[in-house]
Amino acid sequence: MKELPENTLNRLIIYLKVLENLEKKRVDFVSSEDLAKLSGVNSAQLRKDLSFVGTLGTKGVGYSVKALKYNLKKFLGRTEEWNVIIGGITPLSRYLIEHAQLQKEGFFIMAAFDTKPENIGLVIGGVSVYNLDQLSYVCKAIKVDIGIITTDEDQEIYFSAFVQHGLKAILNLSNYPLFPEEDDKIKVENLSIIHGLTKLSYYLKNFGT
Amino acid sequence: MKELPENTLNRLIIYLKVLENLEKKRVDFVSSEDLAKLSGVNSAQLRKDLSFVGTLGTKGVGYSVKALKYNLKKFLGRTEEWNVIIGGITPLSRYLIEHAQLQKEGFFIMAAFDTKPENIGLVIGGVSVYNLDQLSYVCKAIKVDIGIITTDEDQEIYFSAFVQHGLKAILNLSNYPLFPEEDDKIKVENLSIIHGLTKLSYYLKNFGT
Repeated sequence: MKELPENTLNRLIIYLKVLENLEKKRVDFVSSEDLAKLSGVNSAQLRKDLSFVGTLGTKGVGYSVKALKYNLKKFLGRTEEWNVIIGGITPLSRYLIEHAQLQKEGFFIMAAFDTKPENIGLVIGGVSVYNLDQLSYVCKAIKVDIGIITTDEDQEIYFSAFVQHGLKAILNLSNYPLFPEEDDKIKVENLSIIHGLTKLSYYLKNFGT
Repeated sequence: MKELPENTLNRLIIYLKVLENLEKKRVDFVSSEDLAKLSGVNSAQLRKDLSFVGTLGTKGVGYSVKALKYNLKKFLGRTEEWNVIIGGITPLSRYLIEHAQLQKEGFFIMAAFDTKPENIGLVIGGVSVYNLDQLSYVCKAIKVDIGIITTDEDQEIYFSAFVQHGLKAILNLSNYPLFPEEDDKIKVENLSIIHGLTKLSYYLKNFGT
């Protein structure tokens, strides 16, 4: 199986979120034209993308919101639950733990790690904070799927610890992007609010008047 | 002037962040090979991207970290300060306001808006919360550059209010992506932690074993 092109994957996730929103609004069926418009693409693109998922609409009725949502969730690995650990106790990690949004979406925060003595042993929103040294112990005790890095200070320390302990997926929420070595079998997603704002500042500076 | 391809823009922002990290570590010069490696690209790609910015390295010495950082910042509109307003009082908006990271980076949160009576009139970390009805008043009183949407509940209400009042740039941090109409002269960036995690769950499901 070949990995999907990143832009296709991004669009499939957008379709899923748009469908979830339609379901919240109790919409049962959606035409490919409407779904495409809500997702910021044209309907030829939408149909091409959905061919990867193998879902077909019905002529005159469109797509069943529930069925297409389920197929997308399944395709994207979102019908399963995933165990998450956090690297770094920061205001962002506290927000993620306390807000419980991740858990609602099937991503369960199992443990947090820090290197500062004053944070070790804390329990935040039911999640224990361990010394990073204890990572191997925790990885043996539970299946860890995803590591989230939430600090700008020691992001590289958490990154190499996560890689060393065989994590296969890392979400890097620090402001400094991280990239695996070529032979690391790991997927890294860099996601930064400052990155998003910089895309807007570029636009405003050059096209904003 | 033509807008840069999005992938090029993303890479330029990554170079900026990598350079900022090198500067923190008191590195003065970096070769194009090292900068490329730290940024997850090859050096031919890096040189091509930097040709948009018009910065040349010196043979045998590489790039001056400070000079290239400054040129990138300027190119990306990050030597200027930008005024930001927030749509929706949520744990996420509280985190953004109280953490003050945005301000350090030159994005100043000037006001927040909500629609729930119990939130109107609050002052959070020095930022006043106004009724969304008062948006036109605030937009007349100060220059507003960027609107950040931080709620999953009424994201469309804030979005259309921001568009109507002439905002040119919106960062949508809700979990539901938003897209402007074709004739809206507005740039929207959708940035969602759940989106990032879903890219990882897709990878884990299909390639994680």
